[in-house]
Amino acid sequence: MAVNSPVPVAAALLPVAGIELGFAQAGIRKADRKDLLVMKLTPGARVAGVVTSNRFCAAPVQVCKAHLASAAVLADAPIRALVVNTGNANAGTGVTGLVAANETCSALAQLLGCEASQVLPFSTGVILEPLPVERLIAGLPAAIANLSADNWYSAAEAIMTTDTQPKAASRQVQVGEHTITLTGISKGAGMIMPNMATMLGYIAMDANVTQPVLEHLVRQAADSSFNCISIDGDTSTNDCFILIATGVTGTQISSIDSTEYAELAAAVISLAQELAQMIVRDGEGATKFMTVTVEQGRSVEECRQIAYSIANSPLVKTAFFASDPNLGRLLMAIGKAGVDDLDVAQVDLYLDEVLVVRQGGRNPAYQESDGQRVMKQSEILTRVLLNRGNATATVWTCDLSHEYVTINADYRS
Amino acid sequence: MAVNSPVPVAAALLPVAGIELGFAQAGIRKADRKDLLVMKLTPGARVAGVVTSNRFCAAPVQVCKAHLASAAVLADAPIRALVVNTGNANAGTGVTGLVAANETCSALAQLLGCEASQVLPFSTGVILEPLPVERLIAGLPAAIANLSADNWYSAAEAIMTTDTQPKAASRQVQVGEHTITLTGISKGAGMIMPNMATMLGYIAMDANVTQPVLEHLVRQAADSSFNCISIDGDTSTNDCFILIATGVTGTQISSIDSTEYAELAAAVISLAQELAQMIVRDGEGATKFMTVTVEQGRSVEECRQIAYSIANSPLVKTAFFASDPNLGRLLMAIGKAGVDDLDVAQVDLYLDEVLVVRQGGRNPAYQESDGQRVMKQSEILTRVLLNRGNATATVWTCDLSHEYVTINADYRS
Repeated sequence: MAVNSPVPVAAALLPVAGIELGFAQAGIRKADRKDLLVMKLTPGARVAGVVTSNRFCAAPVQVCKAHLASAAVLADAPIRALVVNTGNANAGTGVTGLVAANETCSALAQLLGCEASQVLPFSTGVILEPLPVERLIAGLPAAIANLSADNWYSAAEAIMTTDTQPKAASRQVQVGEHTITLTGISKGAGMIMPNMATMLGYIAMDANVTQPVLEHLVRQAADSSFNCISIDGDTSTNDCFILIATGVTGTQISSIDSTEYAELAAAVISLAQELAQMIVRDGEGATKFMTVTVEQGRSVEECRQIAYSIANSPLVKTAFFASDPNLGRLLMAIGKAGVDDLDVAQVDLYLDEVLVVRQGGRNPAYQESDGQRVMKQSEILTRVLLNRGNATATVWTCDLSHEYVTINADYRS
Repeated sequence: MAVNSPVPVAAALLPVAGIELGFAQAGIRKADRKDLLVMKLTPGARVAGVVTSNRFCAAPVQVCKAHLASAAVLADAPIRALVVNTGNANAGTGVTGLVAANETCSALAQLLGCEASQVLPFSTGVILEPLPVERLIAGLPAAIANLSADNWYSAAEAIMTTDTQPKAASRQVQVGEHTITLTGISKGAGMIMPNMATMLGYIAMDANVTQPVLEHLVRQAADSSFNCISIDGDTSTNDCFILIATGVTGTQISSIDSTEYAELAAAVISLAQELAQMIVRDGEGATKFMTVTVEQGRSVEECRQIAYSIANSPLVKTAFFASDPNLGRLLMAIGKAGVDDLDVAQVDLYLDEVLVVRQGGRNPAYQESDGQRVMKQSEILTRVLLNRGNATATVWTCDLSHEYVTINADYRS
């Protein structure tokens, strides 16, 4: 059960003009489940993405990067389709894996009448096992046969692995004189850490945006959404966040200094944050949703370091799981974050509105019963004030439960 | 149950001339358990230590650092005693905590007839709660009353927290023409990460060593023992490794280039490694003991980065707990370690003698049954070969089990 995150309603997911989605049961790893997704784009669409920082970057991610780069340069060969499989990550698979990813692109390109370089491949699942590429390719015609602009809910289901529920959301926003529609899906529940290391996330919108602006926007959105979450501090080999502007609606946005850009960016960031938080709320074994904010730092970097040190600490996470206000563990995590010149005597710490630590020591007015009350909630804000600057960073995370161990000890069985 | 780590036999722990140990039940947190340890040193003894890198350095650690520094400078006021309490870490306790640590030193100094600055205080237990210093001080006379050179086993018991068994070992070694005796104790089972961030460890020896040489030796020993272990990646506010040379036996060792230094250092490092590994084997919830070695790196630093990335990955640790050769997670952990220029196509990976990954991809000859066989063992060696240099690093760690969550969710109850 995801923490305070209801299953999205299919009817509330808005079609985005210029993109169609099709799915299939290709039997990549298990029978009788949707495990293949095709997204077909209108010819004028533009695509930008950010991908994992893991050096063991999976074969499809390597191909994806290459195809994105060539599409950005060659105006006459834009990205026309995306293909996602679950059940196998095609990572740690060497040259064979690259061949399989390229074959996937070629097969889909042939079916759609475009070049292989106009297809972006994505895989998620078990690492270090050969991708059953024949089964994947055999599933493509079925996915193409049911292409539809209304398939967002099924698309969200088709990319799930250990997710307990599909993740999807929509927005409509006024940009200049036009109404822009945005719909996104995401997946991921473990191996979640920042630096685009996260999960699969796709947002499509019918806005008309130049390639450089789209590339700026995808980074900006990632940095304030998918790059702000952590479930276990692990970083996947496969994960990508892709932003698609189908270009069907509105005037072209060609500058990041325009009002239109600001309006669109706000909607993209808001949607990306919602999709990213859905991942945390559905974190493997999660029973609580925690927001960690570090304020008044000298730099965003040091605020992020401390926020992640808290968010990734197994001792902090198990204390939250137990609803135990063992808050000294928060100080431990602040202190070990690697901010060498941190003056801990300046640090204040709040749990929701409860002032727990003042100037580095226990607040004399702090009552354990107040801490206990907040810890029992399913949503908890941890606020750290460094009192030495104006920078802020926020990270979203979940607790560490028995269920996390169970899921990850049994994942392949 | 610690992994392949029998409870030490009291009779096998050798007295070290020049140090006596006394213990008491002070009722710091719980009744009816040894929670107070006093170590009394002969006047000629020298002491050196390394302490936690956590910025929320606990009050006793701050006092300990100051007293070590002044004793090192003032030849006429050497360290005469150490005092350790469990049940309360006296960390995150602000000025009150510093006062309590100083009061502890003063009280013991008065009982022993020395200055407060000649006493080193240590605390371990819950963070952010006031130290019940009156109870601690009230327990000191009982600890002094049973001071004895034969109390090493009880001393090891007196410093336990979530440890399931006491940790202690002895060595005798020939240094030049003299037989030197070394005995050490350690504690710690969670919040274990490197950079002297680890636990409490004390080694006493009857060797005669100058202060600068002792300080070099304590760092050298820490870097190849206590700084090579990880249970959960968390770093305590309180932890210290202390090396005591009582000076009773043998010729003075005044140079790190001497044969005598090499002989003594080998014994100290070997004992420190045994004590450090005991901590990992008794890691909270541990069912397996894992050695992670990264070889053929460009620098020790990058080898350590990768070794720790593996050792601290919750996904790797849960796979080991499950005896599941889901070895792609090892690649994930190598790739996310932050070695930006790592060429993963050069990486080989062995599980014990089984070659799993060759040149970054699955070894064609690898059989899952071979991986399965190794994963079922209680001791597993993971060897990563980077094939780009001559540096090596080793980290010892344990798996992540249900029991870890249980222990840390219930620690204070």
